[in-house]
Amino acid sequence: MACGEHRVRFRVRYSETDQMGTFYNSRVLEWFECGRTEWLRGAGMPYTEMETRGVCLPVIEAHVRYLGRARYDDELEMRVSAGMSGKASVRFDVRISQAHSGQGVAEGYTVHAVTGIDGKPVRPPMWLVPIFSGSSEQ
Amino acid sequence: MACGEHRVRFRVRYSETDQMGTFYNSRVLEWFECGRTEWLRGAGMPYTEMETRGVCLPVIEAHVRYLGRARYDDELEMRVSAGMSGKASVRFDVRISQAHSGQGVAEGYTVHAVTGIDGKPVRPPMWLVPIFSGSSEQ
Amino acid sequence: MACGEHRVRFRVRYSETDQMGTFYNSRVLEWFECGRTEWLRGAGMPYTEMETRGVCLPVIEAHVRYLGRARYDDELEMRVSAGMSGKASVRFDVRISQAHSGQGVAEGYTVHAVTGIDGKPVRPPMWLVPIFSGSSEQ
Amino acid sequence: MACGEHRVRFRVRYSETDQMGTFYNSRVLEWFECGRTEWLRGAGMPYTEMETRGVCLPVIEAHVRYLGRARYDDELEMRVSAGMSGKASVRFDVRISQAHSGQGVAEGYTVHAVTGIDGKPVRPPMWLVPIFSGSSEQ
Repeated sequence: MACGEHRVRFRVRYSETDQMGTFYNSRVLEWFECGRTEWLRGAGMPYTEMETRGVCLPVIEAHVRYLGRARYDDELEMRVSAGMSGKASVRFDVRISQAHSGQGVAEGYTVHAVTGIDGKPVRPPMWLVPIFSGSSEQ
Repeated sequence: MACGEHRVRFRVRYSETDQMGTFYNSRVLEWFECGRTEWLRGAGMPYTEMETRGVCLPVIEAHVRYLGRARYDDELEMRVSAGMSGKASVRFDVRISQAHSGQGVAEGYTVHAVTGIDGKPVRPPMWLVPIFSGSSEQ
Repeated sequence: MACGEHRVRFRVRYSETDQMGTFYNSRVLEWFECGRTEWLRGAGMPYTEMETRGVCLPVIEAHVRYLGRARYDDELEMRVSAGMSGKASVRFDVRISQAHSGQGVAEGYTVHAVTGIDGKPVRPPMWLVPIFSGSSEQ
Repeated sequence: MACGEHRVRFRVRYSETDQMGTFYNSRVLEWFECGRTEWLRGAGMPYTEMETRGVCLPVIEAHVRYLGRARYDDELEMRVSAGMSGKASVRFDVRISQAHSGQGVAEGYTVHAVTGIDGKPVRPPMWLVPIFSGSSEQ
């Protein structure tokens, strides 16, 4: 049930622009989260199901490089992949480009702890590891 | 312990602008929430304390009229007042102006149900009513 | 080229939730904007094209009634219609429901001035009126 | 006119929380921006003045490590310092802690290009370099 790269298309919302006329920098982390949501759904384990099982993946580290402009209503494509990062955390890598020209917009990664609903670290459960280790083989 | 109008000063964040060069329309509802937070603190009942007592005030209606522009880093002043709205809900009225010129930026109100932590309506507790009914006398 | 009701499906983002576990109230105004974007595209006049022609539709009034909860990843459906509001402004009406159960989430409207790029009111151009007056006939 | 570390106090807004009950991860980048705004004001060169002079500092890289929880209405303290990063870019370092306990909340940095209003890189002007090179001596 593991899966490799997942692609998501979306448009820049007006609310995501700033007075420079391009997207505001923090929006990229919100887009990354949409990418994680769709990657997990594609891997057969929607994040809502994961939370139902008592497991959360809070972000403990984030990194973004801004590559180019994107304006209101531009259609963007996000390519998301994921894997284990050590034994106790997982990592998502994301690259966002203009859907039509392929021009880079932003790229980066997030690292996530594996915790219970209370936010305290837990050992990654048996069902979780294959979801993320499978992806690195593809 | 009731109190009337409360004033809050704040600056427009860069993240709150949009490509028109002024604040994005939904930010006003976030500012209104900051106004409610400070009004309740001024009334001696911080919202965190209210939640600790098991009472929430979710928004059930919001109205905004946009009066004028405000740019990044403009200092704004928010005037907030509150009162009961019928027997089972409360209402906050807010007006936001440029702090220096007094020029109007936005005005409006929010109406709030009185609920438990589970989001279900409850009869407003004895300690809550004076906070909001007092304010209308001032 | 006029069109009536337009439907848009979307999912609640994690970034749009708050500590109550449902969407934060101001997000509805961001969703309304996505609805306007798709309505205008459906009417054959994307908002980017409108801005290229030198016309903007800044929000001058917004009203929202909150009808029910929506959680992270819930799929919602937005029904958007639009029309002239007097001779110099336009209005969008929106209703958001749970896509599967049809249960109401929020409803409301926004009223928009017709302005130039500088934000100053202009007489609605000839090509604009039919877009919005047609919709009221349907 | 250069200055070293600058401190900013602020409270977590309700709109900045998510369903985990702590702040949503992207908000840290918005707080960083508030920190930059106050650092530049403290250095005698508000960002609005910089833009008036035709210079912008768009973010080209951002990194955040999440250190601990912060809840709605928690008072946080942000410590901001800045310096040149090579000859053509500037860097801000930020650490956010609980104002009362000193417990860490997040830390990271942003790197900024020096551009004209059109977003194209320019050589850092004579008046800009001392603002950022002075800070490293303190």
